Amino acid sequence: MSDAQRRACILISCPDRPGIVAAVSAFLFNRGANIVQLDQYSTHPEEGTYFMRVEFDHPAPTGSRSAIEADFAGTADHFSMTWRLAYQDEVKRMAIMVSKEEHCLLELLWRWRWGELPVQIPLVVGNHATLQATVEGFGIEFHHLPVDQLNKAAQEKAVLALLSEKVDFVVLARYMQILSPQFLSCFPYRIINIHHSFLPAFVGSKPYEQAYARGVKIIGATAHYVTEELDAGPIIEQDVARVDHRSSVQQLKMIGRNIERTVLARAVKWHVEDRILVYGNKTVIFAP
Amino acid sequence: MSDAQRRACILISCPDRPGIVAAVSAFLFNRGANIVQLDQYSTHPEEGTYFMRVEFDHPAPTGSRSAIEADFAGTADHFSMTWRLAYQDEVKRMAIMVSKEEHCLLELLWRWRWGELPVQIPLVVGNHATLQATVEGFGIEFHHLPVDQLNKAAQEKAVLALLSEKVDFVVLARYMQILSPQFLSCFPYRIINIHHSFLPAFVGSKPYEQAYARGVKIIGATAHYVTEELDAGPIIEQDVARVDHRSSVQQLKMIGRNIERTVLARAVKWHVEDRILVYGNKTVIFAP
Amino acid sequence: MSDAQRRACILISCPDRPGIVAAVSAFLFNRGANIVQLDQYSTHPEEGTYFMRVEFDHPAPTGSRSAIEADFAGTADHFSMTWRLAYQDEVKRMAIMVSKEEHCLLELLWRWRWGELPVQIPLVVGNHATLQATVEGFGIEFHHLPVDQLNKAAQEKAVLALLSEKVDFVVLARYMQILSPQFLSCFPYRIINIHHSFLPAFVGSKPYEQAYARGVKIIGATAHYVTEELDAGPIIEQDVARVDHRSSVQQLKMIGRNIERTVLARAVKWHVEDRILVYGNKTVIFAP
Amino acid sequence: MSDAQRRACILISCPDRPGIVAAVSAFLFNRGANIVQLDQYSTHPEEGTYFMRVEFDHPAPTGSRSAIEADFAGTADHFSMTWRLAYQDEVKRMAIMVSKEEHCLLELLWRWRWGELPVQIPLVVGNHATLQATVEGFGIEFHHLPVDQLNKAAQEKAVLALLSEKVDFVVLARYMQILSPQFLSCFPYRIINIHHSFLPAFVGSKPYEQAYARGVKIIGATAHYVTEELDAGPIIEQDVARVDHRSSVQQLKMIGRNIERTVLARAVKWHVEDRILVYGNKTVIFAP
Repeated sequence: MSDAQRRACILISCPDRPGIVAAVSAFLFNRGANIVQLDQYSTHPEEGTYFMRVEFDHPAPTGSRSAIEADFAGTADHFSMTWRLAYQDEVKRMAIMVSKEEHCLLELLWRWRWGELPVQIPLVVGNHATLQATVEGFGIEFHHLPVDQLNKAAQEKAVLALLSEKVDFVVLARYMQILSPQFLSCFPYRIINIHHSFLPAFVGSKPYEQAYARGVKIIGATAHYVTEELDAGPIIEQDVARVDHRSSVQQLKMIGRNIERTVLARAVKWHVEDRILVYGNKTVIFAP
Repeated sequence: MSDAQRRACILISCPDRPGIVAAVSAFLFNRGANIVQLDQYSTHPEEGTYFMRVEFDHPAPTGSRSAIEADFAGTADHFSMTWRLAYQDEVKRMAIMVSKEEHCLLELLWRWRWGELPVQIPLVVGNHATLQATVEGFGIEFHHLPVDQLNKAAQEKAVLALLSEKVDFVVLARYMQILSPQFLSCFPYRIINIHHSFLPAFVGSKPYEQAYARGVKIIGATAHYVTEELDAGPIIEQDVARVDHRSSVQQLKMIGRNIERTVLARAVKWHVEDRILVYGNKTVIFAP
Repeated sequence: MSDAQRRACILISCPDRPGIVAAVSAFLFNRGANIVQLDQYSTHPEEGTYFMRVEFDHPAPTGSRSAIEADFAGTADHFSMTWRLAYQDEVKRMAIMVSKEEHCLLELLWRWRWGELPVQIPLVVGNHATLQATVEGFGIEFHHLPVDQLNKAAQEKAVLALLSEKVDFVVLARYMQILSPQFLSCFPYRIINIHHSFLPAFVGSKPYEQAYARGVKIIGATAHYVTEELDAGPIIEQDVARVDHRSSVQQLKMIGRNIERTVLARAVKWHVEDRILVYGNKTVIFAP
Repeated sequence: MSDAQRRACILISCPDRPGIVAAVSAFLFNRGANIVQLDQYSTHPEEGTYFMRVEFDHPAPTGSRSAIEADFAGTADHFSMTWRLAYQDEVKRMAIMVSKEEHCLLELLWRWRWGELPVQIPLVVGNHATLQATVEGFGIEFHHLPVDQLNKAAQEKAVLALLSEKVDFVVLARYMQILSPQFLSCFPYRIINIHHSFLPAFVGSKPYEQAYARGVKIIGATAHYVTEELDAGPIIEQDVARVDHRSSVQQLKMIGRNIERTVLARAVKWHVEDRILVYGNKTVIFAP
């Protein structure tokens, strides 16, 4: 049995109190599992919320997974846990949504091809056809679903029909449309967007133009889960680059492009590897 | 004659048009000066504003400075220049204003002691007495001028009386008071503040608390010239550091403290070395 | 009972095998302790070495510490653990050794004064008297023990006599002498040095001159535990800064100074907080 | 006439002495040119070597270029200049040499496609056929010229035959072969290599394995001009990323891959834009 088949991780959040590590680690040890990585975080040692990610190798064959889950229910109830198990061989399925710009899309597709992103990509949806050939060149389906002011609801419905049952989460790789609350509700905390500014600075449209006007000396990009309030969802990752007075808006865009794709790729990798727990409007990232 | 006595720089801004470099460099060559560094920037090659900084060694004795300035007037008029000459041996005089926190103050005093900041520091003004001993330990005058809601105008008047004729510019090293427009007008673009966030994010008070609430993954600090609008003046320098979900407000402050002092020290050094030109609400920085 | 009095951490290394987390966490839970942070790392899940750091709050009064340690011995033996307990209220005692340059020394002293470095500093030893007044200004003993080619052994003996029984570890804050193997053997992996290059580049003397000659575009500094081979001990922390062709050796030193002090301060903090485990010639850092 | 047709730059190195800026800027002004950017650097104001890059817009039609060059000869002789003129519309021709890894190649091809790298790419040469389809997908010729211990000289000769007359410079994008002095002599300071370490640390083969063994906390990559001594040519650009004890050799390679491609892309861009002057074994980079 390969490493991938045997590796799993459990993600837990619950009210903090003594004994959680002992209970979880005893449960795993008693089932023959070996802990490979364990991360935990508590918002406060006495009255806080406790978050845990345990990555482990388990000897059980695939068929026994429901048995593990049933067994763990007692422990979980005792500590009022919200929890889930993720098996490394149950590879997540990701849809990518794009408009015309390819840099974020390509970064994801190449890292996927290089084995850096262990994910399936059943399809890419574009509201423009610009990137169709690029996507198909990777052997991935491309669906062109144009959107305008009149057909927005219908287009979203068509997109959802394509994604439904087929994908676990969605990445907006410079998809230049705002999604409706109805759409978002189908993928709660499972839609990742890349915003081309160092949030919360420069919310909304034309952030590079805004950054140029303000005369900042550093620009950035932010990957976040999409929520109803524009550019205000839980931040997953950010990064920055230096600019100066010589940087035109065009140059800010060029420099920014290379931050955007790196930041988005990191955020997607952490999502795929079950390293992110959302609480309130923030994220706990158990990065490697 | 020492290097310091012979070194000077000229700072110019004017409408861009051909011939400026030729005119300025010919002027300097004809007077026996040798250009050591030359930086220029134009907002647009055809209709923009042109900025220039030329650092040069000149053979003339101190007495002839007014002669140089008189000679240059013709060239300056021809190109409608705003300009000034700065002599390296006319060391700038800096006042520092503080409240209770010492990290920014100390960074400036150390770098000054290590020879990194070629400046005179005639006095430090505090609205608290907390840092008196520290400042006096460096052989620098400390003036305690407390401020409250009733005496604000009188206190500012007293500060101005102390600074008047004695200093060329003012650094607010975590001075936790907002200065009045009257005060600011005495030192236009010559008051440098350090704001403890990555502006324009988290304007105003308690920026670390704001950053914590938003769940950002990177925090920053911003040095800027103070203008009437709070935290909205021309940005001189910014820098950032990574944080994560484990970072409490207290830890953000600790991490931030080390960014604040570095950013402020760089901004002050550039001001002292005449590397900053303000245009609109932005800065051109001719950094080394 | 305050937080500090109740907080402790246990550091463990042993051959990796299943059940370690379960055993340690059960032990702590059964004694009424609450785990605050848990970090672990294994060089290989099946045949590797396992490292663990558990920070916890324990309800027991100070008197019972030896009892805890005695109780844990059984678990420790079972897993062939090398281990130790560190109590947060048993503050470590640090000696600093200096020559003439103050930047690293001051950074440590100020962070100590700001509460960032929870450590006692019983004394500073200098082979020059240059920094005596600075050190005494912080209320810390300064001992001037000059060294030359003839008295080296005697001087080291005198230093050891001063440190013996009085300090737990030693920081070389730009102490420009090579310590003998005899000296090092008194503080195994408990002497931290700051080397002014990005090791393993530019080992030995005059690293900034070497960096200048090679024309590197980035310089760095490295904090490491001192071992017999020069600049070859386990690396604790490194950081870098950009330079360019304009940077003279003098400017490299100025830029480097600010990296050196930051890197050293981080390394010392991690040592003080028991976040470092040495294995072979490397370090595991369980940073916050 | 478009901006590109009118834009040019002149690169100069000569012994430093007063009057160079005045002479060059007067020359350009008298011919109706407008200086867009001017950078200069002197190794020493009195006895050093002087380097200059002037970017300018000139009104002259293409036909008059030889006339400009002839005119400038007098000025050049007077100051003993080594110099060359580069016209932005005479786009440089770049060959890329690869083995099996595609990340550096792709980064160059993407940036070229996005308009970030103003260059022609007549061909890519691989000693393996692995990347043939990828290269041809960009509409670029791919030549497969395998090399082994017996045919090395013949293979290099075949490569040179392909490049001769067709390209201005060569980029080794993870080409895993050492080129002979004969090959190098055909492109002096016009072959750019990416070395996967922070030089001068970890020269030679398997730098990530070396970095892992040493336990460094930061890894890097270095772009340099290739000279006869292995990995010892003039450094153009370097960058770094943090790693820690958890980073396996495989992870160092993954992290490093993303530094390598960024560093190489920056170095190539600066070469293409005539921003690099070599002196001794160093580079002057007049970056934007």
